[in-house]
Amino acid sequence: MREDTAPEAPRGRGLSRRGLIGGGVAAAGVAGAFVAGRASEASPGESREGAAYPFRGDHQAGIVTPAQDRLHFAAFDVTTKSRAQLIALLKAWTEAADRMTRGLDAGAIGAVDGDSRLPPDDTGEAIGLPPGGLTITFGVGPGLFRDADGKDRFGLADRQPEALQTLPHFPGDNLDPARSYGDLCVQACAEDPQVAVHAIRNLARIGFGTVAVRWSQLGFGRTSSTSTAQTTPRNLFGFKDGTANVKAQEAAALDEHVWVGASDDPAAGWLAGGSYLVARRINMTIEVWDRQPLGDQEAFIGRTKGSGAPLSGGDEFTEPDLAMPGSDGPIIPKDAHVRVVHPDENGGVRMLRRGYNFVDGTDQLGGLNAGLFFLAYVRDPRTHFIPVQTRMAKVDALMEYLKVTGSALFAVPPGVKPGEYVAQSLFA
Amino acid sequence: MREDTAPEAPRGRGLSRRGLIGGGVAAAGVAGAFVAGRASEASPGESREGAAYPFRGDHQAGIVTPAQDRLHFAAFDVTTKSRAQLIALLKAWTEAADRMTRGLDAGAIGAVDGDSRLPPDDTGEAIGLPPGGLTITFGVGPGLFRDADGKDRFGLADRQPEALQTLPHFPGDNLDPARSYGDLCVQACAEDPQVAVHAIRNLARIGFGTVAVRWSQLGFGRTSSTSTAQTTPRNLFGFKDGTANVKAQEAAALDEHVWVGASDDPAAGWLAGGSYLVARRINMTIEVWDRQPLGDQEAFIGRTKGSGAPLSGGDEFTEPDLAMPGSDGPIIPKDAHVRVVHPDENGGVRMLRRGYNFVDGTDQLGGLNAGLFFLAYVRDPRTHFIPVQTRMAKVDALMEYLKVTGSALFAVPPGVKPGEYVAQSLFA
Repeated sequence: MREDTAPEAPRGRGLSRRGLIGGGVAAAGVAGAFVAGRASEASPGESREGAAYPFRGDHQAGIVTPAQDRLHFAAFDVTTKSRAQLIALLKAWTEAADRMTRGLDAGAIGAVDGDSRLPPDDTGEAIGLPPGGLTITFGVGPGLFRDADGKDRFGLADRQPEALQTLPHFPGDNLDPARSYGDLCVQACAEDPQVAVHAIRNLARIGFGTVAVRWSQLGFGRTSSTSTAQTTPRNLFGFKDGTANVKAQEAAALDEHVWVGASDDPAAGWLAGGSYLVARRINMTIEVWDRQPLGDQEAFIGRTKGSGAPLSGGDEFTEPDLAMPGSDGPIIPKDAHVRVVHPDENGGVRMLRRGYNFVDGTDQLGGLNAGLFFLAYVRDPRTHFIPVQTRMAKVDALMEYLKVTGSALFAVPPGVKPGEYVAQSLFA
Repeated sequence: MREDTAPEAPRGRGLSRRGLIGGGVAAAGVAGAFVAGRASEASPGESREGAAYPFRGDHQAGIVTPAQDRLHFAAFDVTTKSRAQLIALLKAWTEAADRMTRGLDAGAIGAVDGDSRLPPDDTGEAIGLPPGGLTITFGVGPGLFRDADGKDRFGLADRQPEALQTLPHFPGDNLDPARSYGDLCVQACAEDPQVAVHAIRNLARIGFGTVAVRWSQLGFGRTSSTSTAQTTPRNLFGFKDGTANVKAQEAAALDEHVWVGASDDPAAGWLAGGSYLVARRINMTIEVWDRQPLGDQEAFIGRTKGSGAPLSGGDEFTEPDLAMPGSDGPIIPKDAHVRVVHPDENGGVRMLRRGYNFVDGTDQLGGLNAGLFFLAYVRDPRTHFIPVQTRMAKVDALMEYLKVTGSALFAVPPGVKPGEYVAQSLFA
């Protein structure tokens, strides 16, 4: 839970925001207060609900937090050789993230106050914006532990989790190294992209000289629900996505499939209560997809496009009947996506997906450079992702319309407790 | 004004949206109705105001319409040689745009109904979403009139406006041809990026075989207000931008600076009531900017970062006093942005700006590939843009932090009247 904190300077001068959240998830009243605080800056049509989520807790925020609608994700290379400098950065990131998720400037001086002969400690583009439901989630990649030659970089090599290795090459992978890998990652999710971009930008600014952005990805239109209170959104195939996602309300399933257990890996006890994050940039050939008959699209997915019900009948949340016969084989085809990734066909494993749609301009063939930025939190990628992805790459009918252009795996440390810095258990 | 229309099928099956907007700008009640119509699909936290703007009118929507917060902009190359096919596309685009701005599927059959042996006539990712304040604005580039050798392409050469030429090279331009130019353009603005992306995608789908996407650009965080009811947003320099913009309420200024007059160009009477759209992709070196002292940043802009007041005093909307002396020359420096682009220093010309912030991942130096996608509507680029840009490129202190990577100029036909198709006056 969040520490109690005395009131601090809000973003920018002259705002009426006077108090701060005392703790817990923001209730409607708090959100309302932030919107009111912005009234002098925003026209009525602009104001959005300004939820705020605590940065500190048992688990990092941004995993089971109800998926916000916008994403800015960045992977960093660590450029320093100094362990002390790395730790100093993590401390500075912790403080800035804690502040920004409250709707404050990244630093105590702020964007527009302080000595005008010095650079501000906030970049200012979020002045007057409410917290926007911002969560900031940090992860560490395999490269933080060992360099390309296997050499220990920061005295952490003996603490590298066995499961934290560069993901194997899968059929259909066409990876761009400039969109893959990374020593550290930051996932910033918010309801307002300006808030998410502001967070990543300020963390990158703070990290100047210690880390460099390796790649970053914007996303819009969350493609999964992480709470039973959310409806299922649609991906760029036009289908509902993530119906069977692990949800925040499923405590037992989270323990089984998402959170790393205390004895999962003797070398990596520091990761208990954390998770693994798989990030995959999946381009969709949407122009080709759009020319497929509706019936074929539904057969590829195994669900109807309208309601999202499985082809075996019922509504969106009806369990697919994988055995139900159709006119030619099962009614949910052998290569239908919903079958290929179904837990019953994958030893019961589930993932907490948290992906976003993306459109990054145009590709060289005059199509949209668009698709799904797949993010999934799992307890162990060796059991919960690699086998499923291997199977999918081999038999899933959707693969014809997908090209994976980026890939990364990170270990996501447990939550940051009061007084701690992010990933402190790794260095302890 | 919009034609009255009988109720049509809403996006997707099973939605409760029963009526359509009869005409005029959506009032709060209409917006509320759309939100209510989405209730079965959306959680309370997701619902947004669902304004709808009429597609048809004296001027195209998306110019003086209160600037929405998200953008998807696409430029197209025309690949057909057939004038009839080009006109057929414009008719089909008109119908689809008219439908989508009402919150309907792009086509009459829709995303999930009709013969399952055929591709749907909507791609489906906007099922259940309200209109989202969507506007779709069309323009034509110089390349529509003549090919690279100057040959008449579609019997339109004698109707090419004199002002519609490829923009000259400006100092500081570092143009990527793959992000510049285009025979046609479509600006889709909405409060929800999924709605804007859906619009561009479906227009591209409809244009398959006739046009190809040349480039496209997503934007978030409008950087201008086009209505006095809107507050001034911030660009990625962290400053308020567009304070002195031409606003929808300034009818005389719109006639003087934005709308093409009936006798402006004898060859291009078809453009009367239209405008010219300048599109410039302006990368900002934000990492360098972020290391500049606050006082220097304010001197470059000529305004304070907090309130946006000119350095000569007052509040955001106080006119800058360009003559007020400072300790060393005028208090608003000679090379300050606000001075360089001020109408008093540019023969009184003003623009209607409608730009957006963008972040397109990472550049090769580990910085954010970010900046301002500048969009400005002007009555004549020869008087209202080229001289100002030339001056700015030469003397503006900001230029050190800017690199223009994309550029295009389009003529934006007048509004589409009932029964007409977009740009009909060009072909009449």
